[in-house]
Amino acid sequence: MLLDAKLPPSFILRQILPDVAVLLIISVIFQVLKVFVGPYLPPIPLSLPSILGGSISLLLAFTLSQSYDRWWEARKVWGAIVNDSRTLLLQVRSFVKADHLTPALLRGLAYRQMAWCYGLGEALRGQDPMATLVRYLPAQELAYAGQHANKPLALLALHTQQIKTLYEQEAINPFQQVQLDATLVRLCDAMGRAERIKSTVFPTNYRRLVHFLIYLFLGTLSLSLVEINGLWELPILLMFAVTFFLVERTARYMQDPFSDLPTDTPVTAIARTVEINLRQLLEEDEVPAPLPAEAFYLM
Amino acid sequence: MLLDAKLPPSFILRQILPDVAVLLIISVIFQVLKVFVGPYLPPIPLSLPSILGGSISLLLAFTLSQSYDRWWEARKVWGAIVNDSRTLLLQVRSFVKADHLTPALLRGLAYRQMAWCYGLGEALRGQDPMATLVRYLPAQELAYAGQHANKPLALLALHTQQIKTLYEQEAINPFQQVQLDATLVRLCDAMGRAERIKSTVFPTNYRRLVHFLIYLFLGTLSLSLVEINGLWELPILLMFAVTFFLVERTARYMQDPFSDLPTDTPVTAIARTVEINLRQLLEEDEVPAPLPAEAFYLM
Amino acid sequence: MLLDAKLPPSFILRQILPDVAVLLIISVIFQVLKVFVGPYLPPIPLSLPSILGGSISLLLAFTLSQSYDRWWEARKVWGAIVNDSRTLLLQVRSFVKADHLTPALLRGLAYRQMAWCYGLGEALRGQDPMATLVRYLPAQELAYAGQHANKPLALLALHTQQIKTLYEQEAINPFQQVQLDATLVRLCDAMGRAERIKSTVFPTNYRRLVHFLIYLFLGTLSLSLVEINGLWELPILLMFAVTFFLVERTARYMQDPFSDLPTDTPVTAIARTVEINLRQLLEEDEVPAPLPAEAFYLM
Amino acid sequence: MLLDAKLPPSFILRQILPDVAVLLIISVIFQVLKVFVGPYLPPIPLSLPSILGGSISLLLAFTLSQSYDRWWEARKVWGAIVNDSRTLLLQVRSFVKADHLTPALLRGLAYRQMAWCYGLGEALRGQDPMATLVRYLPAQELAYAGQHANKPLALLALHTQQIKTLYEQEAINPFQQVQLDATLVRLCDAMGRAERIKSTVFPTNYRRLVHFLIYLFLGTLSLSLVEINGLWELPILLMFAVTFFLVERTARYMQDPFSDLPTDTPVTAIARTVEINLRQLLEEDEVPAPLPAEAFYLM
Amino acid sequence: MLLDAKLPPSFILRQILPDVAVLLIISVIFQVLKVFVGPYLPPIPLSLPSILGGSISLLLAFTLSQSYDRWWEARKVWGAIVNDSRTLLLQVRSFVKADHLTPALLRGLAYRQMAWCYGLGEALRGQDPMATLVRYLPAQELAYAGQHANKPLALLALHTQQIKTLYEQEAINPFQQVQLDATLVRLCDAMGRAERIKSTVFPTNYRRLVHFLIYLFLGTLSLSLVEINGLWELPILLMFAVTFFLVERTARYMQDPFSDLPTDTPVTAIARTVEINLRQLLEEDEVPAPLPAEAFYLM
Repeated sequence: MLLDAKLPPSFILRQILPDVAVLLIISVIFQVLKVFVGPYLPPIPLSLPSILGGSISLLLAFTLSQSYDRWWEARKVWGAIVNDSRTLLLQVRSFVKADHLTPALLRGLAYRQMAWCYGLGEALRGQDPMATLVRYLPAQELAYAGQHANKPLALLALHTQQIKTLYEQEAINPFQQVQLDATLVRLCDAMGRAERIKSTVFPTNYRRLVHFLIYLFLGTLSLSLVEINGLWELPILLMFAVTFFLVERTARYMQDPFSDLPTDTPVTAIARTVEINLRQLLEEDEVPAPLPAEAFYLM
Repeated sequence: MLLDAKLPPSFILRQILPDVAVLLIISVIFQVLKVFVGPYLPPIPLSLPSILGGSISLLLAFTLSQSYDRWWEARKVWGAIVNDSRTLLLQVRSFVKADHLTPALLRGLAYRQMAWCYGLGEALRGQDPMATLVRYLPAQELAYAGQHANKPLALLALHTQQIKTLYEQEAINPFQQVQLDATLVRLCDAMGRAERIKSTVFPTNYRRLVHFLIYLFLGTLSLSLVEINGLWELPILLMFAVTFFLVERTARYMQDPFSDLPTDTPVTAIARTVEINLRQLLEEDEVPAPLPAEAFYLM
Repeated sequence: MLLDAKLPPSFILRQILPDVAVLLIISVIFQVLKVFVGPYLPPIPLSLPSILGGSISLLLAFTLSQSYDRWWEARKVWGAIVNDSRTLLLQVRSFVKADHLTPALLRGLAYRQMAWCYGLGEALRGQDPMATLVRYLPAQELAYAGQHANKPLALLALHTQQIKTLYEQEAINPFQQVQLDATLVRLCDAMGRAERIKSTVFPTNYRRLVHFLIYLFLGTLSLSLVEINGLWELPILLMFAVTFFLVERTARYMQDPFSDLPTDTPVTAIARTVEINLRQLLEEDEVPAPLPAEAFYLM
Repeated sequence: MLLDAKLPPSFILRQILPDVAVLLIISVIFQVLKVFVGPYLPPIPLSLPSILGGSISLLLAFTLSQSYDRWWEARKVWGAIVNDSRTLLLQVRSFVKADHLTPALLRGLAYRQMAWCYGLGEALRGQDPMATLVRYLPAQELAYAGQHANKPLALLALHTQQIKTLYEQEAINPFQQVQLDATLVRLCDAMGRAERIKSTVFPTNYRRLVHFLIYLFLGTLSLSLVEINGLWELPILLMFAVTFFLVERTARYMQDPFSDLPTDTPVTAIARTVEINLRQLLEEDEVPAPLPAEAFYLM
Repeated sequence: MLLDAKLPPSFILRQILPDVAVLLIISVIFQVLKVFVGPYLPPIPLSLPSILGGSISLLLAFTLSQSYDRWWEARKVWGAIVNDSRTLLLQVRSFVKADHLTPALLRGLAYRQMAWCYGLGEALRGQDPMATLVRYLPAQELAYAGQHANKPLALLALHTQQIKTLYEQEAINPFQQVQLDATLVRLCDAMGRAERIKSTVFPTNYRRLVHFLIYLFLGTLSLSLVEINGLWELPILLMFAVTFFLVERTARYMQDPFSDLPTDTPVTAIARTVEINLRQLLEEDEVPAPLPAEAFYLM
């Protein structure tokens, strides 16, 4: 979602092809019916599809609006993850006493945080994050995470464990422990919010209702146009079908932003941004380049 | 709500059957009237139902929007419950001093939290949660909860009591007590928000107004079509009736997400997710499987 | 607002009767004019009222949406009051040292909180809360509250005073004082938010504009129909008038949720819920029954 | 905004007079053109202004919605100021040790807070607040405020200074200092939010676009009606012009709630409410009456 | 965005010129086709473009609404930056012990905060902030910032470093450190939110869909008008094209508020406001004037 890249129009059109095809077949059937049983077809004044078209436009506008909100909320959650990842490292650097603040400590925490970001992104997309975690975690932590169904939760548990150890060693004072804990609470919250968006399907009933109504509208329109326009009805209907199905499809793509599709929230690119920021704060020399935009983005 | 399961169309249609039937009867009456008193029926230009249809579409769109917001807020509340349940256990593990942090302590707290989740879900659906609580609570706590009208509130009181005891035993320091208390405040808040959604009916007056207007619109449309389409009016009207009643019904299902219907927020499945997460954090070996999606979900 | 009770339709219709009557008179005047000066009346194509009807539907939808938001915000504020009332008692029970935590202390605080809830509700409705306060407050506190114009604010001042005393007696530590203070800040905030909704009239100008436009629309429609439908114009216009005035009226009822009308936010019933919860937390034996729903609710 | 006062209709109409006049002139020109070059005028089917009217209604509904949100946000900011002003005094009363808690201290703080409220209101309206501040501040503080461009910010600086002094005198403990500071942060935030609404013009480009489109719509409608209605076109067009310009004007009044107009957020009346509340908490005998509503309110 | 300045209309029109030109060419082609193959052109009743026009108006209204939200959110983020910048300085002044509170300390912090504001604004616009930072930062800090890809993040790291040093010197107590850290967390959050708005393109797919639909609508309208109006079709179509493209363009300008265009959020002017406020709190004599509004603002 980070690039305004050109998307081959063929890709979009392919998505709505089946629906458009079904509709054209219906339309051809009406043409044939007209030839054979013309006088018995019901007269459909254009006002009827017009009323239906108005209602369906409103439903589509509402759907688009809610879909956009889900997509934007997903993006906000990942924005918050960027912020709290940076905050976590800045806080540990700022809070831990000088004699405990070893590069190893900072590095361990920062790498676990990078692992958490990549791992959460992959878990949301239904992939196994273990292959990625191995690049950032020591063997022992990797083994611990491997036992958990929810890997990012396991990493958060390791974070809290480390904060606890720092407190027991008196490397941080009680207030600082609580403040660091508040940052972890926010990360736990962001994780839960992303999982909620992932696991809550947009009301299926509603989705199918809208789909059904678009067919109803286009069918009525077709019947209405058959009488007026003859064969010209086909291109006109095609145009309407493309319009409404495209809008519906665009909404659907935004509803599920963690589906391992090119239209997802770019979780990997965001995790990479976190990695770059944290590595620079660690003052590492080798910092990876920002992730090149994947192939293309639908929206 | 966790599965995109197929819903038998018959189920949905059965819900709107009575309304559609009433409307067809009205429509037939108009047909009969036309035969006998045709010339005395008022001429209704199609613009009139068109204006009404536009207004009703807007009202339905607004209703859908508010209904969706209620449904989504209910889902957010339960998402917050997942987050704070995890946070509570992580915080206790992180805060309590090593010599007080017995497995029994953690287990007791975690099981009480699971009981709270299941119990809140059942209380919201108007069921008696005691049968479920008995599987998670020791006898003494069960007895205490049994005395309260509001069982989840009683469990929260037990949580605060335990935090107090930990503080008195100096197992946690004052800051940690306050931070744990903040987590309990959030849980208390989530409980209250779910109860609010449950106990606040969507404005009844408004609901009935919309229902009445759909009838008004379809009646006017029927009268208008009788003159143009003759008997063809019946299937056309049927189509409009199904459309508008379906949208209304879809909105109504989302308005009350804790009604013990297949369209509810899946509180039991979410409580099960909490149980799985907490048991894994307790490092238990036996973790129950995620709840299979109940029969089917309407939306 | 807690019951889905049946509302006698006569009640609703009586509200819009004057407006509908005025409109029918206008309509009759047009009928008479038509008889005498018919050829000089302007021809109004139905498209003109159609455009106006579309605009007014949009304005009404916007009004409904904002009214609903006010109504829902009012409900949220009172939901937050329930939560924070419970939290306050749980916190005091949890924070105060065992030797200071007398039943009298808890009871005093809980009863003052109940008084605050009932008193705030009555103050919002413009009633004098002193008659209710006398049932919950000791004489001294009652006298203090009596001197204040804003009784609930006086009770909050007494709360803070008691917290201060507890701190000076070292019954709570500094962190606990601050945490209790945060709960009082939230209660003060909820009070202010309810007062804001109460004291901020929905833009009067806007209200009257919508009212004027409905008349304009119906007048134009009447003129337009007079030519087409003759006397049938009257029932058709009646139907449109009822529709639009009902929607407007429904919106208006939700705009001012603290007006001592059956459509109000049920502040007394909510205060009763708080009373039941607090009394059970005090482990009192006699707990009042939930408040039966008042007469009926408009929405 | 606190009173539902009657507003002389002449006031509202005067605001839209110029636009309506321009439009009638255009309309008369079309009438004249029709007489001389009638056959060469383009035929405008009513569907064309109908499409434009629908689009413009949507734009106006969106504008109204955003304007209302700005107006309501401004009201919320001032509601928060009321809450935090009360909280500030309650906290100082509750936190400061008995031997430091002199009436002079409380009075100084409360009067500075009143000055802050009045001063912020006047600064937002572009007035010089010094004349008002002199009634509430001692000479020294007045002089300090006089040196600052942003007087309310200067008063907040004095607040923080006083909190600091209290802490250095050990009249409050560190936690209490931080909690008081949090209240000042919220006040600083409310001030900044009000300044943001004041200084951010509603997108000018958008405003002018809507204005231009209303002219376009009414011009097209005029041309379309000239052919159908002859001279009757003038009153019909007048009616449409009044409708659309009134809605636009109503939206514009809500966009800038700090413009020293009768439609403003009633900042002075709210500051007066704060003054009454604080004086009663100071247990002063003389409390000013609530501010009588200014002349009238447009909305 | 701070001035309601006049914008030369030529500027706006130039933006939509290419689209309008393309459309007029299409329209001329239809005119020519009509002359040669008139009888074979499909009859397009005006209802068809009317349905399309309704749908597209709804999509445009939704787009405008989301664009406005982005633009307003960007403005809110920068409003929060103003507030927290002021808060940061007030807090340091209030918290640091008298013997550590040197003018140099305050000045260093305040200037770094000014540098952060200017630098963040320039980074968001894709400019190199180093040229500006040199005016506010000492050499050493400038060198540190120079090594980072993300300059504002480097400055925040320097802030936390300074807070840490103050704490180690016991110039602030642990609570104060945590409270200052909370302010830095908010600044980090504001930075991240601005970056999110900058880096998240408004769904490209959606943008192009709307653009395509406007063409589709206008093409259909053109075909429909060719038969009715002959050559008059050209000016009518031009009017519709200007309307719809202007609305679309207005929405697009609000979507990306950090694009180094005259329609941006005025980040430099806001940073200047921060500079003025902070310099006055430092009690400097020379305070720069508020930034004159840049050339003009599109909206």
